[in-house]
Amino acid sequence: MQNLMANARIVLVNTSHPGNIGGAARAMKNMGIHNLVLVEPRDFPSGKADARSAGAQDVLEDALVVDTLAEAIQGCALVVGTSARSRNIPWPLLDPRETAAQALAELPKHQVAFVFGREDRGLTNEELHLCNFHVHIPSHEEFSSLNLAAAVQVITYELRMALLAANEGDTPKPIWGTQWDEELATNDQMEKLFEHMAQTLIEVEFLDPESPRQLMARLRRLYVRARMDRIEHNIMRGILTAIQRTLKKLR
Amino acid sequence: MQNLMANARIVLVNTSHPGNIGGAARAMKNMGIHNLVLVEPRDFPSGKADARSAGAQDVLEDALVVDTLAEAIQGCALVVGTSARSRNIPWPLLDPRETAAQALAELPKHQVAFVFGREDRGLTNEELHLCNFHVHIPSHEEFSSLNLAAAVQVITYELRMALLAANEGDTPKPIWGTQWDEELATNDQMEKLFEHMAQTLIEVEFLDPESPRQLMARLRRLYVRARMDRIEHNIMRGILTAIQRTLKKLR
Repeated sequence: MQNLMANARIVLVNTSHPGNIGGAARAMKNMGIHNLVLVEPRDFPSGKADARSAGAQDVLEDALVVDTLAEAIQGCALVVGTSARSRNIPWPLLDPRETAAQALAELPKHQVAFVFGREDRGLTNEELHLCNFHVHIPSHEEFSSLNLAAAVQVITYELRMALLAANEGDTPKPIWGTQWDEELATNDQMEKLFEHMAQTLIEVEFLDPESPRQLMARLRRLYVRARMDRIEHNIMRGILTAIQRTLKKLR
Repeated sequence: MQNLMANARIVLVNTSHPGNIGGAARAMKNMGIHNLVLVEPRDFPSGKADARSAGAQDVLEDALVVDTLAEAIQGCALVVGTSARSRNIPWPLLDPRETAAQALAELPKHQVAFVFGREDRGLTNEELHLCNFHVHIPSHEEFSSLNLAAAVQVITYELRMALLAANEGDTPKPIWGTQWDEELATNDQMEKLFEHMAQTLIEVEFLDPESPRQLMARLRRLYVRARMDRIEHNIMRGILTAIQRTLKKLR
C-alpha cells in the first residue's frame, strides 16, 4: 500500500499562504501520501505551515522546493491538474473519483503528479497544458472555489478510497461494526426474551392474549433489527423481572 | 437540488478554533449546503471565522448556536456522527460514500444531521449514542485525525457527488432500507421516550436515581441504533403507560 503511494506526489504552485501548505501536508499524511513539491511558494518554510500541519512536519521537512512546474513534474508519466470547470479548454476532464481510478491504474507503473494552483487564480493555461488530464471538484456554481488544503484533501481522500477498494479485492465489507465490546445474544436467548416480554405485557394489560394483534411481531422486528448484545439482553430480562416483582409485591 | 440540501444540517460540537468554523462554512457552501449548527463554540462569532469562510459569510450569519447536541439535532430522523475507527462500540459504521448514499435516500423525507466533534477529542461516547450511524473517514492508521474543516469537506463532497449522480439517474443505493411502512421517530420524540422510560424504570425499582450507572446509556444505545419508527415509538410509550397505570391501580 505504501509502495504504491511512494509513486504519488502532490505539487502546489505559487502558494500564497503558508498555512495552506501545512493544511495540505496534514491532509496528505492523513491519506498516506508523503511526497510534496512546492513551486515557488511565497513563504516557506514557515511557522504557520508547521502549525497547520499538526504533526505532518515530516512531509514539510521532506518537501522539495523548485522554480518551475516543469521541474516539479519531472519523471512523471501521468500529470493531473486541478481546474475550474468554467475554463474553456478542450481537454480530458475527470472528476476526483475518475482521477483516482486512473491514477491507481498507473501508480504501479510510474510516477504520478497531482497539481494544484494558486489560491486566487488556480493554474495558468500554460501550466494546464503540461497536464495529461484536468480534474474538477464538483462545487456549487455560485461559490466554486475550494480552499487549497480542502482541494488536496478531496483528491487524496479519493486516492485512498480507490486504494482501499483495490486492496480489499472483492471481499465484501461489513456495514455493521464487528468490533463489539460484548458478544451478541443468540437466537434462543432472544426467543426466551420474547416469551418473557409477552408474559409481562399480559400482566400489565397491554397485551390481550385473546386479541394479540401485531404487537409481538412489531416488538420482535424492533429488537431483532437492533441485534442485541448479551448485556442488553440481560438488562431487558432484568427490567421484565423487576416489573413482575413490583406487581407481585403490590398484589 | 437545493431543496434536498435544505433538509441537511452540519453540526459542529465544541469547536475550539473559530478558523475551523469558517473553513467548515466555506466547504459547506462550496458543496451547496447552508445549514450550520454550533454547539457551544469556544469563540464565535469571530473575525477569524469570517476570514477563513472566504465569502461563505451568509452560512456563518445564519448559523444557529445552541447549548447541547440534543438541541442541535432536534427534528432530525437521521443523525450521523463522525468517529475514529478505533472506538470499540457496536454500531453501524459507514464510510463517507455509504453515508452520502444513505443520507440522499432519506433527505426527501426528513431532516438529516451530520455531527462533527472537537478538534482534539472528537465526540464523546454519550454524543455518539445520539447518532443512528457512525461514519469514519478512512485515514492512515498512524496519522488518522483530520482537520475539522477537512472532514466537513470530505463528507459534504460525498453528499454532492451522490446528489449529482442521482440527478444523472444513477441513484446510489442506501445501506439501510428506506421503504418503511411508517415514518421514523424524530430525535425529540426519542428524548421524551427516554425520559418516560427512566421514570418508569424508577417506579419498578430497576433504575436507582442515586446510582444510575450505565443503564440509560445502554438503553439509548439500543433504541437509537435500531432507528425506531413512529408505530414502534407509540407502542413503547403505550407499554410504559400501561406499566404505570397498573402500578397506580394496585397502590
